[in-house]
Amino acid sequence: MPSKKPSKKIKPPKGTRDLYPEDLLRQRYITNAWRDASIRCGFEEIAGPTFESTDLYAVKSGDGILNELFQTFSGKSDKEIEQVQKTAQAPYALRPEFTPTLARMYSAHAKQLPKPCKWFTAGPYFRAERPQRGRLREFLQWNVDAIGLPSEEATPESKAQMDTEIIECAVRLFESLGLTNDSLRLQLSDREVMADYFASLGVSDDQLEIAFTLLDRKPKLAADTLQTLATDANLPAAFIAFLTAEHTEPNLDASGLDSVCSVCSVVKIDPWITKDFTIARGLAYYTGTVFEALADGERAVAGGGRYDNLIELFGGPPTPACGFGMGDVVLGNLLDDKELMPTGVELLEAVARPQASIRPDAFIVPNGDPANEPLVHTLAANLRRGIESESWLADKNRKPWQTNRYSVPPLHARISYKSTRKINKLKADASDQHAKFFVEIHADNKVELTNMDTREPITSPIGSFHVDPSHEHYIGQAIANLL
Amino acid sequence: MPSKKPSKKIKPPKGTRDLYPEDLLRQRYITNAWRDASIRCGFEEIAGPTFESTDLYAVKSGDGILNELFQTFSGKSDKEIEQVQKTAQAPYALRPEFTPTLARMYSAHAKQLPKPCKWFTAGPYFRAERPQRGRLREFLQWNVDAIGLPSEEATPESKAQMDTEIIECAVRLFESLGLTNDSLRLQLSDREVMADYFASLGVSDDQLEIAFTLLDRKPKLAADTLQTLATDANLPAAFIAFLTAEHTEPNLDASGLDSVCSVCSVVKIDPWITKDFTIARGLAYYTGTVFEALADGERAVAGGGRYDNLIELFGGPPTPACGFGMGDVVLGNLLDDKELMPTGVELLEAVARPQASIRPDAFIVPNGDPANEPLVHTLAANLRRGIESESWLADKNRKPWQTNRYSVPPLHARISYKSTRKINKLKADASDQHAKFFVEIHADNKVELTNMDTREPITSPIGSFHVDPSHEHYIGQAIANLL
Repeated sequence: MPSKKPSKKIKPPKGTRDLYPEDLLRQRYITNAWRDASIRCGFEEIAGPTFESTDLYAVKSGDGILNELFQTFSGKSDKEIEQVQKTAQAPYALRPEFTPTLARMYSAHAKQLPKPCKWFTAGPYFRAERPQRGRLREFLQWNVDAIGLPSEEATPESKAQMDTEIIECAVRLFESLGLTNDSLRLQLSDREVMADYFASLGVSDDQLEIAFTLLDRKPKLAADTLQTLATDANLPAAFIAFLTAEHTEPNLDASGLDSVCSVCSVVKIDPWITKDFTIARGLAYYTGTVFEALADGERAVAGGGRYDNLIELFGGPPTPACGFGMGDVVLGNLLDDKELMPTGVELLEAVARPQASIRPDAFIVPNGDPANEPLVHTLAANLRRGIESESWLADKNRKPWQTNRYSVPPLHARISYKSTRKINKLKADASDQHAKFFVEIHADNKVELTNMDTREPITSPIGSFHVDPSHEHYIGQAIANLL
Repeated sequence: MPSKKPSKKIKPPKGTRDLYPEDLLRQRYITNAWRDASIRCGFEEIAGPTFESTDLYAVKSGDGILNELFQTFSGKSDKEIEQVQKTAQAPYALRPEFTPTLARMYSAHAKQLPKPCKWFTAGPYFRAERPQRGRLREFLQWNVDAIGLPSEEATPESKAQMDTEIIECAVRLFESLGLTNDSLRLQLSDREVMADYFASLGVSDDQLEIAFTLLDRKPKLAADTLQTLATDANLPAAFIAFLTAEHTEPNLDASGLDSVCSVCSVVKIDPWITKDFTIARGLAYYTGTVFEALADGERAVAGGGRYDNLIELFGGPPTPACGFGMGDVVLGNLLDDKELMPTGVELLEAVARPQASIRPDAFIVPNGDPANEPLVHTLAANLRRGIESESWLADKNRKPWQTNRYSVPPLHARISYKSTRKINKLKADASDQHAKFFVEIHADNKVELTNMDTREPITSPIGSFHVDPSHEHYIGQAIANLL
């Protein structure tokens, strides 16, 4: 049979990867940890197409991304070919990020979907950037998002709770991989507060997007380049002074951010958190809290924030939403640098280990008194994090993938965003979600634990809580350690 | 901030899928089963880029695929844009199949790689076809391939063994999902034998590719269309008569295929196998055994074969190779039709279940006598398949995902393709591959089982083999059931 013989070996496209078996296992170690952290925090997995209509990204992705699209067309349609030849614009683009797909998917079924939808996804993304350390043209990204709230009017408290649950999921991932807040910190800002501050410096409404873009690019640009770009954009002198100053941390009043920080204390992730009004995030769609996970000498490990207007822009109802993305490349570099990536037989064993139960292990609600709310969040956080064993903690050479790490392994815990206090309604939700155990925190520091298969409740004071084997045992241990 | 508001809701591209949580779990049920079957049969996971140079597919993919490429270019390079505008040909294409990437990856490191490389991969593929039942424009595909043989000259026996191990992996997948040879059959043919037969009907060398393509498309085309296409291609009348006859199964001498069938008996997958000289496979690169998994009323569930010339075409050394691909769409339809897809809480539990150990549970070799070779293959097959429990088999409403299915669960078993009979060399290979147990089949129907961590051997006659807990227990049980 005739065939065209290549004159030389064909190479993989620039900025893409060939993953041989060990490379693949290293990547799977990361994607397994992503899935596990998502499931423990009560997120459900979804997926969208690898390419989308180019129009989808024109809605709100920001110029940075639009300039980096890989465009795509099929050879099957004369109309497409004509368009491509005339305009050099193709009808489709390889997805550079997930949020537009997510907004499209939520908008298409907004009425029927539960509120919030807590969703995660992990898959390939594409940006036609110059490949360099921490940046490839094809990479994996993990996206974790919470969309919609059950009440008609989203309260600042419920938004703070949702923001925190998103940030918590990133922290649970870092913890599971053995990263610590010595090497990694989560920096929080607020787009609205920043926008008000920029306005006070004379930035006009239609300059806001370029102002945020320049602040976001500041760490990567030389001071004079930054100065030139800001001047070219006609930004006011007071803003340029703020932008180009070496250390600028304006002292701003940010009550929304303070609420997020106080929920972070309840779920004990506050040691990871700092407020920082110099981080901006490059994407145009953020509206409130924004955050980045930063390690010394690396690009951002993760970034995200609140995007309350985006679902509406895609044809859905007004919907509060918050989420983050994390790539595999920077995270992999960080794990290598910190010697937190297993090798050899340890890698084989770590990758094959069972993952978190997709059935919720525990569905936790307050019974009666709103004063119990914090204990609900603390218990959920304790279950999601697990309790490390003393023998492992005492080992100076301990590694995060060791089988002796936990005395109470991390479990899948869910809470409710509903304002109802009716236990039977909440129990029905737990049953619909196939939860194994229903946990009620009572006002008198007692806990009622119901096995949802047998419907048998056990009630006991926190602290002396102790029940029999398997999950019940683990949940009981976590309850006993709650105060 | 200004933004472009879409006038109507943007839809997902034609032929792509939005997977909401339950859809995703159904897909993951399939991809978990793919990974599990691959690992049990000793294949290691790899991955390549989602897009490749268009040139890569021009080498040998065949016109069918070349006409269905989604082409891709970045907006970053003036040269690319100029090329696209002038020629409507882009430098990259979304991958329509994996084999060219595999050939490129193997060729790039052929000298250093183990022989054979037993590799699998699962990910998204793209073809710009008209979407219809069983066919989408973006779909998942599982690829399983064995490339290279350790001896300088590949013997027909070692090729038959390799072909069988590839086919076995597909059968292990079908079994694990509860499919049976009532609903699904594997049809085997041989491209070389067919090429000789076509030549005897007057088909010339440069007509062979179109002859195979037409035979492959026969089930999908009307008889007169087939007649016209064959006539237009100047194919000889004797071939056209064969092509257009309603039932044509030439009685051909195919000793290679007979060898494959006899190894299939040893690993007890022969009830799934039929020889069928009317199947052809559309791709141009096949050279020997070809096969398809077919179910009534569906497109092929899987297809593959031997492609001994391909690695050389991509710049590597002459290398025997064999593999198959299986898509998620037809397989998902088949599972739905047969009520073999779990729902509700059973789906949540099935998806979260632990997967096969990436460390080999057993590395099995013959000790001394070549007459023991078949027992090696049978034991490997028995371990890979597992032993179903009597209680489960007695249950008329049994489902494949039930936890009581196995008395000996399916395990990860490896064999060696090396011709050496030196036990210490083979044991060193088992150690390099981190096998947990090393199993020697002795000439006198005795088996020696060595725990590779403790290096303690146990020797016992097959049939009365019985050792203590966990894996050792399971492997012992499988050995006892061997004869």
